Amino acid sequence: MKKIKIDKILKDGKAMFLAYDHGLEHGPTDFDDTDVDPSYIIDIAQKAGYNALIFQKGIAEKYNEQIKKSKIPLIVKLNGKTNLYKGEPVSRQICSVKEALELGAVAVGYTIYIGSRYESVMMKEFDEIQEEAHNKGLPVIVWIYPRGKSVENRAEGELMAYAARTALELGADIVKLKYNGNVKDLKWTVKSAEKTKVFIAGGSKEGEKDFIKEVKEMMKAGAAGIAVGRNVWQSDSPLELSRKIKKIIFD
Amino acid sequence: MKKIKIDKILKDGKAMFLAYDHGLEHGPTDFDDTDVDPSYIIDIAQKAGYNALIFQKGIAEKYNEQIKKSKIPLIVKLNGKTNLYKGEPVSRQICSVKEALELGAVAVGYTIYIGSRYESVMMKEFDEIQEEAHNKGLPVIVWIYPRGKSVENRAEGELMAYAARTALELGADIVKLKYNGNVKDLKWTVKSAEKTKVFIAGGSKEGEKDFIKEVKEMMKAGAAGIAVGRNVWQSDSPLELSRKIKKIIFD
Amino acid sequence: MKKIKIDKILKDGKAMFLAYDHGLEHGPTDFDDTDVDPSYIIDIAQKAGYNALIFQKGIAEKYNEQIKKSKIPLIVKLNGKTNLYKGEPVSRQICSVKEALELGAVAVGYTIYIGSRYESVMMKEFDEIQEEAHNKGLPVIVWIYPRGKSVENRAEGELMAYAARTALELGADIVKLKYNGNVKDLKWTVKSAEKTKVFIAGGSKEGEKDFIKEVKEMMKAGAAGIAVGRNVWQSDSPLELSRKIKKIIFD
Amino acid sequence: MKKIKIDKILKDGKAMFLAYDHGLEHGPTDFDDTDVDPSYIIDIAQKAGYNALIFQKGIAEKYNEQIKKSKIPLIVKLNGKTNLYKGEPVSRQICSVKEALELGAVAVGYTIYIGSRYESVMMKEFDEIQEEAHNKGLPVIVWIYPRGKSVENRAEGELMAYAARTALELGADIVKLKYNGNVKDLKWTVKSAEKTKVFIAGGSKEGEKDFIKEVKEMMKAGAAGIAVGRNVWQSDSPLELSRKIKKIIFD
Amino acid sequence: MKKIKIDKILKDGKAMFLAYDHGLEHGPTDFDDTDVDPSYIIDIAQKAGYNALIFQKGIAEKYNEQIKKSKIPLIVKLNGKTNLYKGEPVSRQICSVKEALELGAVAVGYTIYIGSRYESVMMKEFDEIQEEAHNKGLPVIVWIYPRGKSVENRAEGELMAYAARTALELGADIVKLKYNGNVKDLKWTVKSAEKTKVFIAGGSKEGEKDFIKEVKEMMKAGAAGIAVGRNVWQSDSPLELSRKIKKIIFD
Repeated sequence: MKKIKIDKILKDGKAMFLAYDHGLEHGPTDFDDTDVDPSYIIDIAQKAGYNALIFQKGIAEKYNEQIKKSKIPLIVKLNGKTNLYKGEPVSRQICSVKEALELGAVAVGYTIYIGSRYESVMMKEFDEIQEEAHNKGLPVIVWIYPRGKSVENRAEGELMAYAARTALELGADIVKLKYNGNVKDLKWTVKSAEKTKVFIAGGSKEGEKDFIKEVKEMMKAGAAGIAVGRNVWQSDSPLELSRKIKKIIFD
Repeated sequence: MKKIKIDKILKDGKAMFLAYDHGLEHGPTDFDDTDVDPSYIIDIAQKAGYNALIFQKGIAEKYNEQIKKSKIPLIVKLNGKTNLYKGEPVSRQICSVKEALELGAVAVGYTIYIGSRYESVMMKEFDEIQEEAHNKGLPVIVWIYPRGKSVENRAEGELMAYAARTALELGADIVKLKYNGNVKDLKWTVKSAEKTKVFIAGGSKEGEKDFIKEVKEMMKAGAAGIAVGRNVWQSDSPLELSRKIKKIIFD
Repeated sequence: MKKIKIDKILKDGKAMFLAYDHGLEHGPTDFDDTDVDPSYIIDIAQKAGYNALIFQKGIAEKYNEQIKKSKIPLIVKLNGKTNLYKGEPVSRQICSVKEALELGAVAVGYTIYIGSRYESVMMKEFDEIQEEAHNKGLPVIVWIYPRGKSVENRAEGELMAYAARTALELGADIVKLKYNGNVKDLKWTVKSAEKTKVFIAGGSKEGEKDFIKEVKEMMKAGAAGIAVGRNVWQSDSPLELSRKIKKIIFD
Repeated sequence: MKKIKIDKILKDGKAMFLAYDHGLEHGPTDFDDTDVDPSYIIDIAQKAGYNALIFQKGIAEKYNEQIKKSKIPLIVKLNGKTNLYKGEPVSRQICSVKEALELGAVAVGYTIYIGSRYESVMMKEFDEIQEEAHNKGLPVIVWIYPRGKSVENRAEGELMAYAARTALELGADIVKLKYNGNVKDLKWTVKSAEKTKVFIAGGSKEGEKDFIKEVKEMMKAGAAGIAVGRNVWQSDSPLELSRKIKKIIFD
Repeated sequence: MKKIKIDKILKDGKAMFLAYDHGLEHGPTDFDDTDVDPSYIIDIAQKAGYNALIFQKGIAEKYNEQIKKSKIPLIVKLNGKTNLYKGEPVSRQICSVKEALELGAVAVGYTIYIGSRYESVMMKEFDEIQEEAHNKGLPVIVWIYPRGKSVENRAEGELMAYAARTALELGADIVKLKYNGNVKDLKWTVKSAEKTKVFIAGGSKEGEKDFIKEVKEMMKAGAAGIAVGRNVWQSDSPLELSRKIKKIIFD
């Protein structure tokens, strides 16, 4: 087994990632005239010293020079979908591991919707990615979101822990989850993930105070970091906010 | 990363393409005794100095000599479907990148119906095409049309911008869209596409005045060009109309 | 691009083919004690001087010696289905191009049901066959039949022309269609097919006079030939009838 | 084309096969303490001098030594399914041709449910098997059973003949069918199969007299043999019954 | 045929396995603060001298050093799913045979839900795994569980025997089943499995006395061993309980 070079995206086992795959997942309704531009995001990441940037391959390719110049490590998402289709969710591979490597990625990401009718299609695809990435020493991040008709009315805390454990069983190095707002549940989630590191998705924009409070909670509960997006790049003072997050995570 | 030779189909970053895949997409109801003949289209493209011709592989193959003689660059569409099936739309690959290259193509095109039940099937197929084409320096054009039950009642302007952004995230060099007639929406669409160039689909035949007015609007809104079809080759004076369009785009 | 050796199955750009894939497509209800035997068909083809025989791979293989001895060129159908299943029609590949070549085929055939839910599955499969066949100089014949729930209530003439045009766009050298009995529609169909040659399927057995009248109509409308089956081998005087057809086509 | 070594499983063009794939197709309800053991079956085959044994790969592998010692030629079934699922039937490949050869098979078998929604999936898979097997000189046996909602209320005799003809068109060397009990229908079925040999499936256990009478009928109608299972190994005197069958077939 | 090295996981043809794939199959609801940690499981296996540990690839990879140090043979499960999706069950491959070997596995496992709409998808995938594993001398364990709408109201005993026989026919070396609590049914099940060894799944936690009684019954009925999970690692005295089980199995 090859050594997984996870230290390229972690510092002391922790990290803060700047995520920006919203253009595909939600559409440009998430953006304004400023943050619609990937350059703006790369700029924030560089100035605030993020541990990595998360892009789809299109942006990773078209802004490659700027990303490289920024020296911020690149994570490429290998699947994705729009939010338009209303049936059971499925997100298939739209970038190969080989391509991600050529774009300079030091880690790859993939989303699995557990509970969906197509869960097994995504798990199988993820396995092939995980095997290829690990053979090249590349860490693998899995976004796991319980979705679809079958998970309606299921307890959120239980689902959060299930998502974390699924990531461990599938061989992910990092799992990115949505936090349900309950510290006790998150502690159990982190415990369930065992050697897989738990990262929390920033979620929609909220008041800065509330957001900072949540980040503190997450880190206390044992999360290894946060993958933040809208809360930072929709902020009026993204660098200042990033500085605060960084302090919570690393101090 | 190989350099993408997009300049073969652009002039000063702009272009006017003559599209003619209607025989497959709509059937010959779009044609009359004159424009049913691909030679007529090649002839218009050559005389009017279009930046490229867009054909399916069948026409690209059977009229190859004439296309080469015309010196008009060739774009080959790599998927397509009839308009007969009434369920969720899916259009699969019907020409390989290798084949397009052998036919002399300098760029390839592919249609994705976002919002369709089969969105992920097309996105995955597009990814493989994009990777292969870019590895050979070939620019990739994506037609993105929101379709299927899930997108009924969605705001057209929002969908147009979403289509443009999807193209960027997927790594297309050019996106071809349907214009909803609202300049403000188109500006935001062009902004959302960032480094991916926005081309507008000509649409059904309309009055020449209205059409010319629209082309002006599009270009002012930041589009890089137009992929025109019926409005030109169904016109009584296609060369004159082409000349007018050209003037709007390049002057 | 390799030269397509279409002259092996055409004479002066025209041809009459003897089709015999009915055993799979309709079952032996089409046969009697005489014409159930492929040898009988090969014998007719040889004596009447047909331009080619059309078989599924099973018959092409088991009667290979006799076919070769007859010197009648062989066309192998590469897909097929029974008429038993009542849902949306799909016919998948059941013979490879390589196998057809080894059986001595000088052309290959494939059926696409446009309008079916599975249209795109067949179009994609056809593309791969067409590419491989053309790379080996082998002409490709496509049977295109509009089918499935979506095409109910569509005008037959329009569908016939759409079928012909689809064949051109997909790169077929010959399209085999069902004639709707309207000369004007057929003329437009032939026009829509442009460089793809139009062949008419003989259809069910009818009175010889009516049949001969129809063949005359088809040829006058611009068809390149006919792929006849039941009308000939169910006839009491197949050689005489074949002679009449031949005269209409080539004189 | 390679010579198909069908003589390894036929004697004077005829044969009696001992079939034993019931454990997968019906479950052990077909067995008792004696015939549940594959050794018992191999023993019968050897003592009664069957022309071949028909097993799934699991039994062919685990009882390989005993099969080889018996000198009875081995036919391996390449697909199969349980009888539990109640929807449209599909049986996919569960043993490769390569594996069958390594197990010592001198012929391979495959089941197609014509009329099923998945008919085309099985036909395509069968084609690939047939091509590979024939390239290695291995005869191919196809079980064809009309099944699924679409064939309800269809005339049994017609379906039996259709099954036989389908086998010929697909390139099978032997077709195994269920006999509908009508001699005239079976004669037409044998005629429809032409160069593909018709074998009858023994079916459920019935009175020995009735069974023997049926075998006589089948052979008179032109069948090349019988693939018997339950009627023999559920019999109190399997060797004696086998001797009677043998006499009918070969004398 | 290569020799299958089944002795690596059996002792005198019998074994007790410690199974721990519950994190994926049921979620962490099966765990508490102690047994949520794979190290705890490995520790029990080592101290109690289990014949093998059963893990998904994620745990096999992340705890690889510890597993190797324990000297307990490793069995890697090659498919799996969450229990969230409520439709017809399907579990696809999420670890390759090659990967399992690199992780040090001496056997591989796979689950098939017979009776499910997707039965044939799993059987086909299992076949490919079985062939590859056997080519490398690796024993193959199949979990067979009758599931889905079609098996509702079917007799449990009959289904248990059917599961066992399916394993034999598919070429598994060991089948893992759920015991229905009826000794006579289990005897017939063991008989139906013939050369495939029958292992019983431990099932949910129950009173120790009941559990021990059941293990005795299973072994008397002819099972080759037990794959125990929750009953052991949820126990207050897992080593003592393991010792008791061991005594029953091997004495």
